[in-house]
Amino acid sequence: MKPSIPKGTRDFAPEEMVRRNYIFDTVKSVFRLYGFNQIETPAMENLSTLMGKYGEEGDKLLFKILNSGNWLSGLEGEDLQEASVPRLTNKVSEKGLRYDLTVPFARFVVQNRDKIQFPFKRYQIQPVWRADRPQKGRYREFYQCDVDVVGTDSLFSELELIQIVEEVYRRLGINVCLHINNRKILAGIAQIVGQADKMIDITVAIDKLDKIGLDKVNQELLDKGLPQEAVSRLQPILMLSGSNTEKLQSLRTILAESEIGLRGIDELETIFAYCRDAEVNLNIELDLTLARGLNYYTGAIFEVKALDVEMGSITGGGRYDNLTGIFGMPNVSGVGISFGADRIYDVLNQLDLYPKTTTDSTQLLFAVFGEAEQRYAIRWANALRKAGKNVEVYPDIVKMKKQMAYADQKHIPYVAIVGSDEMQSDTVMLKNLLTGEQQALTLEQLTKLI
Amino acid sequence: MKPSIPKGTRDFAPEEMVRRNYIFDTVKSVFRLYGFNQIETPAMENLSTLMGKYGEEGDKLLFKILNSGNWLSGLEGEDLQEASVPRLTNKVSEKGLRYDLTVPFARFVVQNRDKIQFPFKRYQIQPVWRADRPQKGRYREFYQCDVDVVGTDSLFSELELIQIVEEVYRRLGINVCLHINNRKILAGIAQIVGQADKMIDITVAIDKLDKIGLDKVNQELLDKGLPQEAVSRLQPILMLSGSNTEKLQSLRTILAESEIGLRGIDELETIFAYCRDAEVNLNIELDLTLARGLNYYTGAIFEVKALDVEMGSITGGGRYDNLTGIFGMPNVSGVGISFGADRIYDVLNQLDLYPKTTTDSTQLLFAVFGEAEQRYAIRWANALRKAGKNVEVYPDIVKMKKQMAYADQKHIPYVAIVGSDEMQSDTVMLKNLLTGEQQALTLEQLTKLI
Repeated sequence: MKPSIPKGTRDFAPEEMVRRNYIFDTVKSVFRLYGFNQIETPAMENLSTLMGKYGEEGDKLLFKILNSGNWLSGLEGEDLQEASVPRLTNKVSEKGLRYDLTVPFARFVVQNRDKIQFPFKRYQIQPVWRADRPQKGRYREFYQCDVDVVGTDSLFSELELIQIVEEVYRRLGINVCLHINNRKILAGIAQIVGQADKMIDITVAIDKLDKIGLDKVNQELLDKGLPQEAVSRLQPILMLSGSNTEKLQSLRTILAESEIGLRGIDELETIFAYCRDAEVNLNIELDLTLARGLNYYTGAIFEVKALDVEMGSITGGGRYDNLTGIFGMPNVSGVGISFGADRIYDVLNQLDLYPKTTTDSTQLLFAVFGEAEQRYAIRWANALRKAGKNVEVYPDIVKMKKQMAYADQKHIPYVAIVGSDEMQSDTVMLKNLLTGEQQALTLEQLTKLI
Repeated sequence: MKPSIPKGTRDFAPEEMVRRNYIFDTVKSVFRLYGFNQIETPAMENLSTLMGKYGEEGDKLLFKILNSGNWLSGLEGEDLQEASVPRLTNKVSEKGLRYDLTVPFARFVVQNRDKIQFPFKRYQIQPVWRADRPQKGRYREFYQCDVDVVGTDSLFSELELIQIVEEVYRRLGINVCLHINNRKILAGIAQIVGQADKMIDITVAIDKLDKIGLDKVNQELLDKGLPQEAVSRLQPILMLSGSNTEKLQSLRTILAESEIGLRGIDELETIFAYCRDAEVNLNIELDLTLARGLNYYTGAIFEVKALDVEMGSITGGGRYDNLTGIFGMPNVSGVGISFGADRIYDVLNQLDLYPKTTTDSTQLLFAVFGEAEQRYAIRWANALRKAGKNVEVYPDIVKMKKQMAYADQKHIPYVAIVGSDEMQSDTVMLKNLLTGEQQALTLEQLTKLI
């Protein structure tokens, strides 16, 4: 009868929390440098807020809360006989757990539109829940770290998000490449090949270029129903190469007849110019295969990949022109990105990039031989805490070996041993657990040393 | 069709988050000073973990998650006809939202017993959910801040929790009184009046002494079925007064024949002695009317009240000897307290004790007259951010008045105005929004000033 937790969920032990907090604290401090403020929304939202926002599949993946009290009371005899899952679900459940932070954010903006000062720069770091099949690296509860500006269509906001990406990964020590594209360019490409409805097929095929080569990509496009002429028109796009500037120049020729395509090119050129002004020193690659979340993105789209480790996208986002439209507030443009805490956690682990020291943990343990020694240690511990040091006094009177093992397992670097000799000379015997070194120290000496 | 959130839940806007984070950061930093480490557990627990732990009423207040997929499949025809809510709930729901942090903590300890180093000092700050009827100050989602030591029965741990209470409220600037009692003393009192099963009635009556006076308390005890003799035996306890030491001395006489009562007295005396050794400078009052959570507490119990404002208990907890017993791991003694973030929030608001400045917010906004000025401002903003300042550049080219209004509403103290004159002289015009004062500054001067 050993207890367990629901599949796809996790406990976080102290050593994992230190690492997770390191990631959260890093992104938060960078978000703040750029004037973003934190909000939080409830774990539960009304199902009317959530349903229909993530597609049919998404609706199924929502965790739904059974109505409180007599949840059967809303059901009639026919309901039970009919036994239609979606219809009955609707009658026994009004609330669900949030599936992402984007829809609750849009709901927040609309609900608080009169109180919000636009442009509204917010960040939000909270768990989300999805009833996905659990598998390696995919959980049913995980944290998202979202940062968004809404209420401005200035491309200056895209610059700020790029700067935030640069600074976050500089601080974390992860080498990354930011892939950038523009939804308007993708629309332009589909337009000039005369296949506006095939935009996703085209993007998916382009995406495989590296892996399967040009011939097979062309074959796939034909298989998907693209006429030979459209495939021919795509060739210059498929063979696009060179620097971002060169790619944009070629695209300008290729998309000359697509107004929306040209607007997408203009936008990216402005963003690149801003990056030069701001001396952004990040690998940025114009990547036409990048398509993500085509449903609500309307302008620039981003994805960040770590260079030194095999891992999917660790950050992503883009510009949306009408996120709040679903809640009856049209024409609020915004742009946002989301940092994937779980994947960043894995990257830092794989590359062994966590800081070796942390101020979260205990720096020193007083190991005591008896009750008198313990009472003596209390005062020393108080003085050290006043100086801002995290210290512990071992609570039980047990063998020194056990107290040492405690310090060792908790990765406490110093143990101050207190016996009757030390009490008489008003010192402690400080042992450095890393080096094994020992020395008798006064309180003043000890405070200076740790 | 304005969207809304479920009743009893809340959004937290930026200015509320700053204040909440101030509370959380304060308690966390104090917890760490004493060597407590953070853990987190999933929002969802198996219902088998939660049910039966909070009494029958508690079971009803659990938010239950509808099983994913075809949740009807577990039901048979008879189930539906019978329509018994508890039986059907059991068949359509396996998981629930955590109701507190204590039961998940006990589950965590048992599940991870092989990995945990005892004594295990943990803190946990996460939301909990209860399907209570929402009312003023009572929410369906709220945060708990719990700090516990398990795996030691040393009263030294009680001292540490008292020191944590002292330091947290010193830092927050709230004057408090810590009420302390001992479950063993309450058991002893019931024992010596010969009414072991009437412990709660007796405590409830004692609790009213201040409000209704001795005569009415005695009448209430008789009404509850206590014989006259028992009420007479209770008189010295009801009239107990003086310092904590004096009260304990009187109690030692009164409870002379109750072994468990005497042990409770011994425990409190030891705790008071530790407090003297540690130079604890907190109002501590032995309060025999304090009974809280009689179900699992077995030793010292605590409650903290703010002195300068009418508010219920803002922190509470106690010693439990067998919390993990419910999950098959007996004899793990522990002691813990929980800080009530929502009530502390209200106390700080009522007493206007929040710090006037915060490092979370934007310190300076660059207000710009045009695109060239914006690009100029980017470099200044970068330099200031390198120096750790939170700064913003207004993203849109709009009237100066609008940019000023933005700074004003966001409580940004400084605005650096950039026009063509400033660009030529390589300065900005810094305006202090509090004083209205303006001065032209170089980057170096600006960095020093803010």
